[in-house]
Amino acid sequence: MAANDSGDIRTAILGASGYTGAELLRLLARHPDVRFSALTAGRKAGQTIDRVFPHLASLDLPHLVGLDDVEWESVDVVFGCLPHGSMHDLVRRLPERVRVIDLSADFRLRDPAVYARWYGLEHKATDLQPEAVYGIPELYRDAIAAARIVAGPGCYPTSVQVPLVPLLEAGMISADGIIIDAKSGVSGAGRAAREEMLHGEVSEGFHAYGLGGHRHEPEIEQGLSAAAGRAANVCFTPHLLPMNRGILSTLYVTLEGGATADDLRAELARRFAGEPFVRVVPPEVSPATRHVRGSNHILIGVYEGRFPGQARLVSVIDNLVKGASGQLVQCMNLMFGLPETRSLDQLPLFP
Amino acid sequence: MAANDSGDIRTAILGASGYTGAELLRLLARHPDVRFSALTAGRKAGQTIDRVFPHLASLDLPHLVGLDDVEWESVDVVFGCLPHGSMHDLVRRLPERVRVIDLSADFRLRDPAVYARWYGLEHKATDLQPEAVYGIPELYRDAIAAARIVAGPGCYPTSVQVPLVPLLEAGMISADGIIIDAKSGVSGAGRAAREEMLHGEVSEGFHAYGLGGHRHEPEIEQGLSAAAGRAANVCFTPHLLPMNRGILSTLYVTLEGGATADDLRAELARRFAGEPFVRVVPPEVSPATRHVRGSNHILIGVYEGRFPGQARLVSVIDNLVKGASGQLVQCMNLMFGLPETRSLDQLPLFP
Amino acid sequence: MAANDSGDIRTAILGASGYTGAELLRLLARHPDVRFSALTAGRKAGQTIDRVFPHLASLDLPHLVGLDDVEWESVDVVFGCLPHGSMHDLVRRLPERVRVIDLSADFRLRDPAVYARWYGLEHKATDLQPEAVYGIPELYRDAIAAARIVAGPGCYPTSVQVPLVPLLEAGMISADGIIIDAKSGVSGAGRAAREEMLHGEVSEGFHAYGLGGHRHEPEIEQGLSAAAGRAANVCFTPHLLPMNRGILSTLYVTLEGGATADDLRAELARRFAGEPFVRVVPPEVSPATRHVRGSNHILIGVYEGRFPGQARLVSVIDNLVKGASGQLVQCMNLMFGLPETRSLDQLPLFP
Amino acid sequence: MAANDSGDIRTAILGASGYTGAELLRLLARHPDVRFSALTAGRKAGQTIDRVFPHLASLDLPHLVGLDDVEWESVDVVFGCLPHGSMHDLVRRLPERVRVIDLSADFRLRDPAVYARWYGLEHKATDLQPEAVYGIPELYRDAIAAARIVAGPGCYPTSVQVPLVPLLEAGMISADGIIIDAKSGVSGAGRAAREEMLHGEVSEGFHAYGLGGHRHEPEIEQGLSAAAGRAANVCFTPHLLPMNRGILSTLYVTLEGGATADDLRAELARRFAGEPFVRVVPPEVSPATRHVRGSNHILIGVYEGRFPGQARLVSVIDNLVKGASGQLVQCMNLMFGLPETRSLDQLPLFP
Repeated sequence: MAANDSGDIRTAILGASGYTGAELLRLLARHPDVRFSALTAGRKAGQTIDRVFPHLASLDLPHLVGLDDVEWESVDVVFGCLPHGSMHDLVRRLPERVRVIDLSADFRLRDPAVYARWYGLEHKATDLQPEAVYGIPELYRDAIAAARIVAGPGCYPTSVQVPLVPLLEAGMISADGIIIDAKSGVSGAGRAAREEMLHGEVSEGFHAYGLGGHRHEPEIEQGLSAAAGRAANVCFTPHLLPMNRGILSTLYVTLEGGATADDLRAELARRFAGEPFVRVVPPEVSPATRHVRGSNHILIGVYEGRFPGQARLVSVIDNLVKGASGQLVQCMNLMFGLPETRSLDQLPLFP
Repeated sequence: MAANDSGDIRTAILGASGYTGAELLRLLARHPDVRFSALTAGRKAGQTIDRVFPHLASLDLPHLVGLDDVEWESVDVVFGCLPHGSMHDLVRRLPERVRVIDLSADFRLRDPAVYARWYGLEHKATDLQPEAVYGIPELYRDAIAAARIVAGPGCYPTSVQVPLVPLLEAGMISADGIIIDAKSGVSGAGRAAREEMLHGEVSEGFHAYGLGGHRHEPEIEQGLSAAAGRAANVCFTPHLLPMNRGILSTLYVTLEGGATADDLRAELARRFAGEPFVRVVPPEVSPATRHVRGSNHILIGVYEGRFPGQARLVSVIDNLVKGASGQLVQCMNLMFGLPETRSLDQLPLFP
Repeated sequence: MAANDSGDIRTAILGASGYTGAELLRLLARHPDVRFSALTAGRKAGQTIDRVFPHLASLDLPHLVGLDDVEWESVDVVFGCLPHGSMHDLVRRLPERVRVIDLSADFRLRDPAVYARWYGLEHKATDLQPEAVYGIPELYRDAIAAARIVAGPGCYPTSVQVPLVPLLEAGMISADGIIIDAKSGVSGAGRAAREEMLHGEVSEGFHAYGLGGHRHEPEIEQGLSAAAGRAANVCFTPHLLPMNRGILSTLYVTLEGGATADDLRAELARRFAGEPFVRVVPPEVSPATRHVRGSNHILIGVYEGRFPGQARLVSVIDNLVKGASGQLVQCMNLMFGLPETRSLDQLPLFP
Repeated sequence: MAANDSGDIRTAILGASGYTGAELLRLLARHPDVRFSALTAGRKAGQTIDRVFPHLASLDLPHLVGLDDVEWESVDVVFGCLPHGSMHDLVRRLPERVRVIDLSADFRLRDPAVYARWYGLEHKATDLQPEAVYGIPELYRDAIAAARIVAGPGCYPTSVQVPLVPLLEAGMISADGIIIDAKSGVSGAGRAAREEMLHGEVSEGFHAYGLGGHRHEPEIEQGLSAAAGRAANVCFTPHLLPMNRGILSTLYVTLEGGATADDLRAELARRFAGEPFVRVVPPEVSPATRHVRGSNHILIGVYEGRFPGQARLVSVIDNLVKGASGQLVQCMNLMFGLPETRSLDQLPLFP
């Protein structure tokens, strides 16, 4: 389905001056079907992209404008990279015709009360929430293709749900007692100037955070519960890695129905056979974030546990690609009837 | 107890050209009671320390010699930084009088069969093994003070046993199902030239290793079992951090006897009150490796779990100090009747 | 000019298991005209690429073979990523028809005596040397297009000659007294396991090397002398950066003929207008290696000096792309009559 | 000379919540003659040190207070870590008796007009300026010992003046055309939250800055001119390293009076013989920042140039120690008649 007469998808990126915005620009600038109709920024409105992102200076891109300066009639798809709480009102103001791909949490949680509890914000688009589709193509491909509003999954939840949803659906692991020990590079925290994200504070060090609870918990539990057909509960502990890109989640699960670690690996391999971005690695391989850096890949390893009835999984993604912008370009391709891998064939950058 | 007439502790470091050797030199060079009588190296024998460790060039240290060139009669204490399997024979050749502090695994495991299974080496000093004392002063202070042979604990096992042994002894957590998700900087892998430890391979990346089993598992289980009074079993997953120094262990435990996370924290605070190197942090603080870099400190945090009956702990150490050389200087101080903190009062280096 | 009947360029990479080999694979795997006919390795012959480079496991690539197992008749172009001294004999054994793109220094220096002096090796292909073309397309495009043998420039020399050759040709700077203070990430040193390239040795530190003379000096002087029409002499001081990719060269030059820094910038802008990979930045911008990471770009800034008659230039490249594999894919495109940018349009990866 | 009846030096640190403040605390907390009477902070006043610097939580330190809450009568020495422009008025308000050691630039430049031009601030203590002594002990030891006000040198200027002042005094190098290519870790930029100092912006990258002129230029020229007895002029180009601690300056100088690089090295060795913190390395050694990390050392190498009449020098310091807090503790020791090395004997931390 072409977006307009010219065949171009006229694309607006809202909040283009952050890291997910930069990544969308990197990926979409080489997309043959995309034309940028508007790039917005808050404090940086009025600046040129080469000032905000010198690494993109070779591109011929529109200047950054304020949100109010966007002409919505010349927009086919909106990528929202705005702070949580910004999209509810905005989506309502858009022409019906415009597709919305939102990287914030505003449409991720189906229950507005859960959203309010974890984000401290009232959900102001409860009427639109039911039509929002959660944007993991490997799990919800058909719904995404038909969606007007795609809720971009969190980076951690992507790394957890891709490996665990199929196993819960297959009844091979328990929905109880899932331990998620997750580690992320700093780009997941965005580009805002905060003391705790300075190089001097982050490099050569490591720590856990969110020990009292993290917003990605209810998002993960929502997806896992749907897969299990009953309430799943997880213990999620995120940590901050002294590096820029990459998430690795170490998952500790309880086997069910007599399944073994080998069975789990076989099931994932079967389920994801033919998926261009998912690779289930053999048991002697340990997935590393450096093996997916800059790419839309997710690698999954399955290993025996050390207790009877236990297994371990390790998944890795680039949090800015498969964990954010790349996955949503994948969704856009689906929504506009394009080959799913278009503009997403970058190989990982190593070293 | 002075070591000899002069009052100096005449000290030999075997394998002084690696990272734990460098760290012993850094710590002991400022120790008022220590005099270096011999520093040995293998391939680098004959070199001066300023060639091997330019950062120590300001010190006036003996040249590196081969192991056969050490005059044992002028040695009071030996620090062994040699590869696993080197110390069994060597200890037997030493005068009874000489104290041995071994950083290898040769005397860590009480059961020679376990040693053989995990290290692939025959235990050649089974007669000496019973007198070896496991060198965590906060847990085994009196035995260390009286020991001739101290087995230097592994870095990961130190980070796990200091927080968990007291809780097992107090019957507050279960010895079953303990999950240890551990992360270490690269210096734990030593200074040997290996492709996988190159800067290009390690930086900006993260991965798990030892997924099929790791040698520190039986060492951890030995200590936890002794504390619990029955066989403990752990699921231990180490990961490699893109940084040089620091271990963080995230521990998932099952509460017993009605204990809560707050109870655990209180028990650890009580047990370690007065310990100069242990700090139990309040629940709103998350220990970071950067808070102990270069110091002999261990920080421990206790947090509620996300499941009923579960708690989480986080511990951090500098793997080269509290996880290796620093802890063994602490042992040496005990063995020679000196104040335990002597030469170990370095504050962490941050940033 | 198509390479064979099928239209494919049948490509062999010799020494494919190092970093420049990996980078060639990354770039050429997406090249529509390239088919890999052989990938060789030394110690790692027999292994699959996914073992040697897990980040490329999604590709369907031939196994690594030994050099003797290559069937040269099914090869159109050879990329040589072998140690210096390996290519002289080998090129002679190839069919005339096969194009050679050599990343070693074997064909870089026109004077075999200079080669012998700096590399400590006899030049064994002095008869072939005259036909080798130095592979900087922006400077020697026509000769490269017609060449059978392309000598891949050194990474530092690329970063220096692209900005300075035009200025010397225009008589705007002196060929005397050029100071080159250059800084490189570690990937320039390759993937060989050496103690001084360990993460523990490199990270969080910085030092100069080659202070007694560096092999890239004569290479730089050769290019600058040809441009100046007389002997140029440079003072070249390389330094090692605690990062993986990127070279930044700070160049201190003496103005000639009344030129100013602004004149230099204008001349470079004029000379490189239309060049897809070169960008001359405005004076208020300071080129950063992170702005070219993973791309084939070179950025050049020109600044006033602090002395009368002096100017400064700063250039940045990704040493593995424009400084090695990318530039040589650019050469290959020229040699086979393809668009010069084919398969080289990757945007920089930031952060 | 003891500071008061108790023998303690009652010490106030103004602006203790930044990196130089943290470093003063690290060094002075172990100083047997120092007692902290006040620690101040701006926005963070009211907080405890363990909140601001968790790595110092083991110390028993006073809370952070506002500047107005300091009781000056119980202060013997003030360390000023405040923004430029803060100390002129403040010093005037202090009792005569109080020694002032200022880490800002407020008293570094003898000519108030130069201060005004480079810092954009009026010099409001021109009457006090003449008594301020520039705080490099190796160059101005006697004056420092007698000073009431010590102007803490900039980090870059320290790395340049220690090696060059003696050579200019000896007439061995020219005061003209000195090129300073300097590289610094990020901690020199302080702890303020700024986008360009985020981990995501700094790591895995490198760039020059201050290309239009940098405030340390006039400071360096002031010191070199005094040494030369005539106006010195320098070309100073600073760069930002992707690491936390360390400055390396590469210096390109013109020889005078027939001196050779060997002569320069010999002169520096002679001049600094007996200096506890200065080491002149042999020509085959290249100083690395990692060899001084965390210590008050400065290493200096001298090398032949590549042009006739040219030489190169390389100096390294830890910018937070010898480049800031450490050097000023050294000054304090001199001012109070204590051994100059007291509390400064930390060995470098490597790796």
